[in-house]
Amino acid sequence: MSKSDKRSKKDDFTLALLQSGDKLPLQERRRFLKKSLGMAGAITASGLAGNAVASSENTPPNVPAWSRRLGSGVLSNPYGQPSRYEADVQRRTVDWLTADRIASISFTPLGDIKGIITPSGLVFERYHAGVPEIDPQQHHLMIHGMVKRPIILTMDELMRFPSISMVRFLECPANGGMEWRGAQMDRLQFTHGMLSCCEWTGVLLSTLLEEVGVEKGANWILAEGADGAHMSRSIPMEKALDDALIVFAQNGEALRPEQGYPVRLINPGWEGNTSIKWLRRLEIGDKPWHHREETSKYTDLMPDGTAREFTYVQECNSVVTFPCPEKPLAQPGKYFVEGLAWSGRGRIRHVDVSFDGGVTWREARFTSEVVPRALTRFGLEWDWDGSPALIQSRAVDDTGYVQPTLNQLKAVRGTNSIYHKNGIQTWKISPNGTVSNVQIS
Amino acid sequence: MSKSDKRSKKDDFTLALLQSGDKLPLQERRRFLKKSLGMAGAITASGLAGNAVASSENTPPNVPAWSRRLGSGVLSNPYGQPSRYEADVQRRTVDWLTADRIASISFTPLGDIKGIITPSGLVFERYHAGVPEIDPQQHHLMIHGMVKRPIILTMDELMRFPSISMVRFLECPANGGMEWRGAQMDRLQFTHGMLSCCEWTGVLLSTLLEEVGVEKGANWILAEGADGAHMSRSIPMEKALDDALIVFAQNGEALRPEQGYPVRLINPGWEGNTSIKWLRRLEIGDKPWHHREETSKYTDLMPDGTAREFTYVQECNSVVTFPCPEKPLAQPGKYFVEGLAWSGRGRIRHVDVSFDGGVTWREARFTSEVVPRALTRFGLEWDWDGSPALIQSRAVDDTGYVQPTLNQLKAVRGTNSIYHKNGIQTWKISPNGTVSNVQIS
Repeated sequence: MSKSDKRSKKDDFTLALLQSGDKLPLQERRRFLKKSLGMAGAITASGLAGNAVASSENTPPNVPAWSRRLGSGVLSNPYGQPSRYEADVQRRTVDWLTADRIASISFTPLGDIKGIITPSGLVFERYHAGVPEIDPQQHHLMIHGMVKRPIILTMDELMRFPSISMVRFLECPANGGMEWRGAQMDRLQFTHGMLSCCEWTGVLLSTLLEEVGVEKGANWILAEGADGAHMSRSIPMEKALDDALIVFAQNGEALRPEQGYPVRLINPGWEGNTSIKWLRRLEIGDKPWHHREETSKYTDLMPDGTAREFTYVQECNSVVTFPCPEKPLAQPGKYFVEGLAWSGRGRIRHVDVSFDGGVTWREARFTSEVVPRALTRFGLEWDWDGSPALIQSRAVDDTGYVQPTLNQLKAVRGTNSIYHKNGIQTWKISPNGTVSNVQIS
Repeated sequence: MSKSDKRSKKDDFTLALLQSGDKLPLQERRRFLKKSLGMAGAITASGLAGNAVASSENTPPNVPAWSRRLGSGVLSNPYGQPSRYEADVQRRTVDWLTADRIASISFTPLGDIKGIITPSGLVFERYHAGVPEIDPQQHHLMIHGMVKRPIILTMDELMRFPSISMVRFLECPANGGMEWRGAQMDRLQFTHGMLSCCEWTGVLLSTLLEEVGVEKGANWILAEGADGAHMSRSIPMEKALDDALIVFAQNGEALRPEQGYPVRLINPGWEGNTSIKWLRRLEIGDKPWHHREETSKYTDLMPDGTAREFTYVQECNSVVTFPCPEKPLAQPGKYFVEGLAWSGRGRIRHVDVSFDGGVTWREARFTSEVVPRALTRFGLEWDWDGSPALIQSRAVDDTGYVQPTLNQLKAVRGTNSIYHKNGIQTWKISPNGTVSNVQIS
């Protein structure tokens, strides 16, 4: 039997099944949908069944055009891109948030992403002076200050050191900051989208510090970027010697320009602005520098008028990503409710989900790898009867920290803060399936 | 102090350091490089130090242009792309390998990628009739045959089932197939580049089979693609009920067109062609179908003239990715030798590296997460004295399987095979640092 013979016989068989009411009864299909997904009358046998008109073997109406011709060959694009049908999956911003787009932010579309790896093209952006376009052959990293052997490294030199890879989340501490005083952003992308998780590859900062020889009494490190803002933060030596990573790759390839190409710092679990991008300088000293971005910004104004400084850790947090405002419910029935949990202190140990605004809780299961200081995906089945509902998630990390309600958080922190809002998020489900962002008392 | 005052003072300080021979002595820098990286005389204080000419505060010659101006703002690209300086990192093919580019293959640049996640844009391609451009709203998945409730699912319906995410490698069994009879491809990209590893998200096939109700005696499943080739393979029920996944997302976003958009099968650890892309049909039956791509292709012709069929598992394998032909050694000195190991049977337990063609071995350490049926990255320090060397890696998985030498493999399999070449790879290092692909007896 020739190849074409076999192919056409197989197609006949497929077509027969697609077209035959006997072999694939509509009532069977409806039964499944009703049983499985709770789609009562809303779903009919649309699509294929609707096209099941009389046809000849040579002009099968049910077989789409792409199944009857050759597609594009290899290397049509040596560096691949998403399908054009996914063009709506993109970063977005809120223009009233900042004066311009140079010192601004864009948000990851959390309602569209899957798993725990954020695609590099969709990682949220935060710049203080825009993205510099750096030639890696002209870039250098200087390490100096209280060290025995100050050095300047080219990228080639840096990349000869032993490197490691780790999957870690990265979050701006302003994530959700608009909600402190009751503003209610109308998309998950805007309530929680200053959040991402990548596999980062680089050289442990501790390896480089061993190389330069840290002097006695040196307890702090200033990290400084090569961007026009020279963004800088003071990092305690303890973190530098723990898991701080000098990163040159992200999700298997060179850092993206938006993420600090050709080299950045990553402080796993810490607020994103400490993970200085376009890193050009590490100065070792005996005290923090108190630069602009750790005094006038990135501090937390408390109810008594004092400001918390150096609040580095992104505490345990979680959010339901389906349903969400961008992904409403079509009709009553069975759904798989999903979300993301993360903690700057370690692994996620447990996630509960409430459908009644925190009165009762059900345990969710993990549906991804569970990696310390990484996004962790959870999910659970829910049979929605069409009543109004208030969906929440509550995460616990392996230190025992329990994600607080927003009111518990406000009781301690007041409402003057911008940063470190990790209160439980509430999505209100209306009888028509729409989802809105609410704050409940 | 105003923002601009602080910024300019900081710059002065940096510049002073960059420009001053006193504060950053060249001999110190040379000492580090010599001590750390073994760069004896080859590296001088090029770059920054070479630019350390007289300057005024307002025209610093050492501060690159990108540090003195604003960069591009957020959403300059709502879906980000690599730096233009990384344009050379791309898939490539060998044009003599196939008659055209429609039924062909392109290779992942393994020498350039980092960590264990392969960027979606660099995942190797393998098509039998090119890439179909599928509208997900028009695509359906039919499940029928020996089942109680045959169904046709739209993509929206499929995506309502509970889903999970797993990081798993994907390899064409022809990877390295050109080497059986002694051909020596001149790039790592071509010897091992039909290999990738992604986080896949989808619905377990077992979930869907439970939904349709498998009849007694049904032991096999035919998976068929919607591409022009209608690529199809017979899958044993045991795998379907184990970890086979009906996948709609890859590395956090929708499948790329090259990888089966909008839906594909993934059989973790099995030869890539069984993981049918653009999946349109799953037929449940009581015996394998013996279609073209499991009889005339994807079988292994043994020395006695018989052919092994249904050799699904990609056995334990590894390769050194640095150094490699594309990434030679600049000069004698200290290097961090790196590579990738993987096994279709489970976790990588151990990797050894030899620098003398397998006479002596040193244990490498893992430098990534160690996930079953995923790429695992390893590395170890090596001080190269400039002598010729033969670098090999040998992986062991958690079943105890030890990666064989190519000669051990040939002793059993002969040289008629195309598929399943997992013999130890040898890179020859010449005194000038170039790296070539050799087969040693």
